[in-house]
This record gives sequence, C-alpha cells and structure tokens, in this order.
Amino acid sequence: MVKPFTEVTLNNVDWSISNATLRLLLTHSARQVGIVKDVSRTVRIGVLGCGTVGSGLLELLESRRSHISKTSGVDLEVAGVAVRSASKDRNYPVASELLTTKAEELVTSDDVDIVVELIGGIEPARSLCVAALEAGKPVITANKELLANVGFELYELADAHGVDFLYEASAAAAIPIVRSLRESLVGEDITRIMGIVNGTTNYILTRMDEEGADYSAVLSDAQRLGYAERDPTADVDGFDAGAKAAILASVAFGKKVVAGDVYHEGISAVTQNDIEFARNLGYVIKLLAVAELFEPSDESTETEIGVRVHPTMVPKDHPLASVRGSFNAVFVEGAAAGELMFYGRGAGGLPTASAVLGDLIDAATNLKRGAHEPVPAGDRATIRPIDSLHSAYYLNLEVVDSSGVLAEVAAAFGRHNVSILSMEQTALPADEVRSGKAEARLIFITHVAQESDMQATVADLRKLDVVAGIVNMMRVIA
Amino acid sequence: MVKPFTEVTLNNVDWSISNATLRLLLTHSARQVGIVKDVSRTVRIGVLGCGTVGSGLLELLESRRSHISKTSGVDLEVAGVAVRSASKDRNYPVASELLTTKAEELVTSDDVDIVVELIGGIEPARSLCVAALEAGKPVITANKELLANVGFELYELADAHGVDFLYEASAAAAIPIVRSLRESLVGEDITRIMGIVNGTTNYILTRMDEEGADYSAVLSDAQRLGYAERDPTADVDGFDAGAKAAILASVAFGKKVVAGDVYHEGISAVTQNDIEFARNLGYVIKLLAVAELFEPSDESTETEIGVRVHPTMVPKDHPLASVRGSFNAVFVEGAAAGELMFYGRGAGGLPTASAVLGDLIDAATNLKRGAHEPVPAGDRATIRPIDSLHSAYYLNLEVVDSSGVLAEVAAAFGRHNVSILSMEQTALPADEVRSGKAEARLIFITHVAQESDMQATVADLRKLDVVAGIVNMMRVIA
Repeated sequence: MVKPFTEVTLNNVDWSISNATLRLLLTHSARQVGIVKDVSRTVRIGVLGCGTVGSGLLELLESRRSHISKTSGVDLEVAGVAVRSASKDRNYPVASELLTTKAEELVTSDDVDIVVELIGGIEPARSLCVAALEAGKPVITANKELLANVGFELYELADAHGVDFLYEASAAAAIPIVRSLRESLVGEDITRIMGIVNGTTNYILTRMDEEGADYSAVLSDAQRLGYAERDPTADVDGFDAGAKAAILASVAFGKKVVAGDVYHEGISAVTQNDIEFARNLGYVIKLLAVAELFEPSDESTETEIGVRVHPTMVPKDHPLASVRGSFNAVFVEGAAAGELMFYGRGAGGLPTASAVLGDLIDAATNLKRGAHEPVPAGDRATIRPIDSLHSAYYLNLEVVDSSGVLAEVAAAFGRHNVSILSMEQTALPADEVRSGKAEARLIFITHVAQESDMQATVADLRKLDVVAGIVNMMRVIA
Repeated sequence: MVKPFTEVTLNNVDWSISNATLRLLLTHSARQVGIVKDVSRTVRIGVLGCGTVGSGLLELLESRRSHISKTSGVDLEVAGVAVRSASKDRNYPVASELLTTKAEELVTSDDVDIVVELIGGIEPARSLCVAALEAGKPVITANKELLANVGFELYELADAHGVDFLYEASAAAAIPIVRSLRESLVGEDITRIMGIVNGTTNYILTRMDEEGADYSAVLSDAQRLGYAERDPTADVDGFDAGAKAAILASVAFGKKVVAGDVYHEGISAVTQNDIEFARNLGYVIKLLAVAELFEPSDESTETEIGVRVHPTMVPKDHPLASVRGSFNAVFVEGAAAGELMFYGRGAGGLPTASAVLGDLIDAATNLKRGAHEPVPAGDRATIRPIDSLHSAYYLNLEVVDSSGVLAEVAAAFGRHNVSILSMEQTALPADEVRSGKAEARLIFITHVAQESDMQATVADLRKLDVVAGIVNMMRVIA
C-alpha cells in the first residue's frame, strides 16, 4: 500500500504533501517547468472511442468551452481521439490530426492529462484504463460492464497513484446519482436503493400499459424505432440493469459488489394480463434494480447485501410508478434523509456525454489543485441469496373450474407458511385459455413471505392436477 | 482580490500552494506542530443553534461517527454548541460542558475547525458567519434567508480566505440539488429550473385536490397538525419558496440573484373550483418556483434571468405533478442532460441535518487536503420583469348569462393579442354565486401570450358590466 502522504521539512515545519501533488511536482521538475505555469495551463484530454457518446462529448467540449472556462477556471482541450478506423464517417466532425488508431499510445502520451474511456466492454477498455492510471493520469469512464466486473481493481489502482477514477455516466447517464451517493449521502445510513435503470424495458412496459399491447408486438416495434437492439437480450433479460445495480450497490454500501452477484429476471414473461391485473389492484409493473443492506441480525451474523433485478409491482402512488417511457429513476431510502428520487435520461449520446463532462471538469479541477476524489473502499460484500428475500408476491395461475380447487390451492400456500392478502377469481375467456383444461384464473397477492417458501409453494402448485399453469409470479412492493 | 495561489521555489522547482494549504501551514507553524499530525487529527465542529436541525445533526454525528470515519477517513467531534439558553430542555441530550451562550467566542475559538450555522434568519447568523470565515474557518449553513439576501458577500469572503462555505440544506434540505448543480451540471447549459420547494403549500394543495376541501379548511387543519405555522404567511404567500428560488437561480446560472428579485404570488387565492377545472383539463395545481435563463435576443441585448413563484397548472403526466404531500422536487432542464428531477424531503430536522452532514464531511475532507469547493462567482443578474414573461394562462371568471357576453369577453382577449386555446362555459349553481349578478362561469386556457398582454386583458375584463368577477388567473405549463 502506497502511503497517501509524503512528509517534507521546510523552515522547521513538517509539510505533508499528497502523492498527487508530489507526482505533479516531479513530472514538472523533470521538464524544468514550474507548477505555477502548469496550474494556468490547458488540461488536455485523450478520448477513447467516438460513437454517440464520444461525438456528444466532443460537441459539448466545443460548444461549452468558454462557459466551462469562465465558471470552473479550467480550459479543456481535446489532445486526441482514438478510434478503430480513422476513415469512418462520424456524427460529429473530428479534425483528422486528432484521430488515431493507436489507443495505447494516446493513453500514455505526454500530451494527454486526462483519459476518457468510451469504448465500452471489458477489453481493451480495461487494459487502456490500467495503462492510463499507471501513467498517473486520471480516467473518466461511462462503461458499466467495466465497472461492474473489474471496477475495484481500477479504483485501487487510481488510489495507489493518487489520481481520479470517475464513472458517473456508467450507472444512469445524466442522472447524478453516483456523486450524490458518494458525496452528499456519504454519511447517510442508506437501507435500500430501487432503480428503473434500463430505458428499453421501461419503454416497453410503458407502451404495454398505455396501449394494451403484448410484449412481443411492442418489442418488435421498439426494435424498428431504434429503442431496442436487434439482439435485445442485454436489456430485456436484465443484464444491463444488473450491471448498474452492482455499481449502485458498491457506491451506496461501500462494499465490493460485482455483476455476477446480482440475481436477475427479465421482462419477457410479463403478459398484458399481468399488467391489467396490476392496474386493477393499484399497481404498475416496472423492471426494478434493487439493492438492500441487511445489518447483522438473527438471520446472519454479518452485514449482508441483497442485489436483484426483476419485474416488480409498484404501488401506483409510489414515485417510481410515474417514471414513464425511456426515462430512468433511482429511489434511495436513507434513515435520516428519508426518501429521495433522482429522475432523468439514463442513456443516449448527449445525456451520457453530459455526465462525462461533469466528471471531466471535476477531474481537471482536482488535477490543478493536486487532489483527487476518494474511491469506494471496502471488502467484498457478503451477498444475501435471493432465497432469503422477504417480499410480498403476486401469483397468476390458471386452474380447472371444479369444486374444491380453491381449497387445494390455498392448502399449498398454507403448507409453506405463505399467508394470502387478497385473491381474485375470474372465468377465462376462450381465447385466453393456454391449456386445454384451464377454465379459471386465480390472482393472489400474499403478505410478506420468504422467497424460498414462495418458490416451494409454486413448485407444489405446479404438481396439482387442478392447476393448468403458473402464468407469472412477481415481487410486490408492499 | 486575494491571489488564489502562492508561489514558492524549492530545489529549483516553482511550487504553487493554495492559500488554504498555506493558511494551514502558517497556523500550525505558529504552534510548532507538523501538518502530518494535523492531517490525522479529529475535525472539531462548532454548532450554532440547537433546534430540530441542530439536535438532528448532533444525533447523526453520534450515531454515524464510526461509519463516517471508516468511509471518509475523517473523525468529526463536536467542540461546542451555542444556544440562547443553556438550561432549556432539548430534543437531543447535549453534554452541559459543550453548551455555551457565547456564540461569538465559539466561532473564533482555537478548538473549532468548522462552524455550522443553524440559527436561521439574517442576524446574528450573518455576523457569526463573517467572524468564522474571517478567522479562516469553513462554514456550513442551512439558512435560506441568509443565502438569499447576503449569500454573495459570504461566498466572496470564503473565497478570499480560501475556505469552504457550503449550503446544500438551504435550498431543499435532504435533496442534493446544490451539489448536483454546482458539480455534476457545472458544464451543462441549464435553461430552466422548476421546483416544488415548499412542503406546507404542497401539502395544502395535495389535500385540497384529494379531499375536495377548501383552502381555509385545509390550512386550519394543517396548522392544527403542525404542518403549517400559526402565522403561515412565509409559506402560503411564497416568501419561503422565493428565497429558495433565488438560491437555485444563483447556483444554476452563476449570477447574483437575491430574494428581492423574485416575483411571487401565494396559494390563498386557489379555490376548490380551480382545482376541479384543472383536473378536468388534465392539470394539477402546484406552487412552483421557476428560474429561467434568457440568452440575448430581440427582446434584450444581455442575458436575463426570470425568477418567480406562483400557483401553476402542471400537466398531470409531468413528473412534478406526482409530487404529493409535503415532499419537494426540483425539475431541471438542460440542453445536453435533458430533463432531470430531484425528489425528496425539503424540510424537517433529520432530512435537513442529513444535508448538513454531507457538507460537513465535504468541508472536513477539504480541510485536510487543503482544498475548498469553488464558490458561485458572477455578476449581479439582470432580472427579466414578470411583465415580459411568456406563458399560457388559465382564467376563471364569472359572468352574467345573456346574449353577446361571450363576444364581449372574447373581444377583450383579441384587443391584447391573447389567443384562446380552449373555453368552457358552465352554469353557476346558486350556492357558488359570489356576486348577485353572476350566473355563468367561463374557463379559458390561452395560447402562449405575454404577461403584460394578459394583465391588460384581465384589466379590461374587470371593467366589463357583463363580468361579475375574476376568480383566478394562473400560469399554465404548456
């Protein structure tokens, strides 16, 4: 572990100089250039990747240059843009002398003070970030895969080199949730975070709710309109939201949480029928990323973190219920602050570039004053398995319509200590029958139960002759 | 103007040391104590005021001590609490040796590193903050009157002394809007901010909407329940929201805006009738604080800022429409970031203390590394008068029911170039008639018009014999 401070004696006073300051001094000593000049100098940026976010950032750096200089006292200048092919047409015109295909050279170049990584994916993004940090350069990234998989390796490297490693854009693009958690709420006792952090799935669920359309029809249309990828797996199966959940859990709880820790279910099983029942019961279905902190208790002797992504029934007067279309929002529950929600654009070129720019100005300001932001420290989190979750549940099943069915079904709940809050039975219209024997639909909302008990109940129900099918089970915010 | 950096030459290298670092060095040089010791030392806090926020802060400093030390590396310790009477019973038990009635001595005491001002009002808060800043101590405040009236004097003093002056809690308590604007969005082109920043009025309007009750009945009940003050003027007439609007406008636009610049109307004229018509037309009535930036254009050769507080008709699918009860929210529109909203508790002991604690950790961290946050710089704002506002309007008037009335009324709009978007006429039930001659109600929604034209239209309408009364005029978010 590198000591964060160096001691110097001058005029009988012991000085303590941060390594970042010392690094600056040594760098410039070698060049025989005084720090005073350095402080007033332009901060030069190396950008890796020039897709929609990279183009957006270049556009903002140009259009906001004088504003940033005036309000923050830093002059930002693009020193180079690393791309895969220098000849490709781009959304934003980049001067050809700035373009390079040699990302490795750009990140360690003496002409680059700060590196912005906008390539996405783990490699080569990871190696380039490592090279930049090892060369003592602050790094800004918008890369959720990188953060959710190898983030802690990079935090530690940044800390050892006394430079910034900032990643606001990785969790929810334009929504300043990372800085709020890291700075404003650093002293707060945060108990739970619930986020709508994937715009594609929120767009699909919103249209299913507003238009009464089916999942597959809305997905096709979303793909046609460019709101969903041709291969929508990362979005609809909850992988994207899972990576963001890991990042948010790490920042909020100060423990190492990675993408692999996150339990996830996607939205492909959500039917129009579920949406209608949810609405009638006073709920809206949202794909939520949930991160919870469990203090040591009867169930565990150590602090545990639960992280999960799944379709959830949200009461219609809950602030998350009104987040529509491709908008994102993160709801934070703190012991002193109470309920907080952060709403905005969680994707897109300019919204993501806006968050990157905020980090960039922060890093440039820190570079000048020889400081850097604290990085998330903390041990590997102990993950509470989904089986131990306590939640209320929604269960939609199809049954035959004969006497004694309800008693048989109710008995299965009883055997596993799952207590029923409300039940509704409707006859199945002929065109909705999924199985030859299904004649009626039963919709249950349970009291809070343990997930393993609920899963056992569902397994029992599946075995009953009177049950034609389990249409869906969803967690409910009570 | 004090130079922000001092130059030192050491081993042929020019060093630049921030004044904050230099101040630390000189202070400790006098004590012959090395900075190294200082860096690991506890940061001692002088708290001014021990009401609900002060008590909440003391509680958090106690309960979160080890968490803060672990996550932020700072050890916070209360050095003293200044109160008016040392013998009063308090919400939170304060050790008697910490209590003092001599606030002036506490703020300049060598035992105090950071001062937290929670007295409220302008004096003696202002003098105490000045004394603390002049003694080189960072100051944290939750005081909106102070900020909205003499904030800039204090920012400049803090800057000259190279110390922090932080005030997150003053704008919207637990909602981290100030830091988000100042840091995350510092590079963003913010065009408009709209906030529900007064919990009392939002509580009253929500109950009027949900219960169909009248303003005066809900106000009385709110007073009984402690949601409204016995003298509710500051809340219901928009003074409280106005002070917060001035603070938000200053931070967002980097110009000096003071409470006196804010145009304000309260909610006492809002009737149940207005609320019902708003609902039928697809709107919710909210008391909004609005701050807008107008770039130089045909109407003005310089950048202007409009700041106003008034009841506003908000479309029911707008994120602000779903902010209910005593919750607050601030909606920010940025050119690149798009629409953002920050939602949470805008008042209350613990939510306010939570924001103060975030600032306190920030200031303590900065103190240790010899840094401080940039303060809002900028010239006095040129305020655009309310007469020049462009908005859509809602007008509720009572008229006699005779032929030609509508033509006469419509002609008044036409004379002032106010174009009508929609109109609804209803017969007045006998018990709603406010004036002997009133027989029908006309509800207009206009297209976007200039405020002065709308005011001239209303003045004309008032003179018409067929108009029995103008019930209400409200601005509408189109």
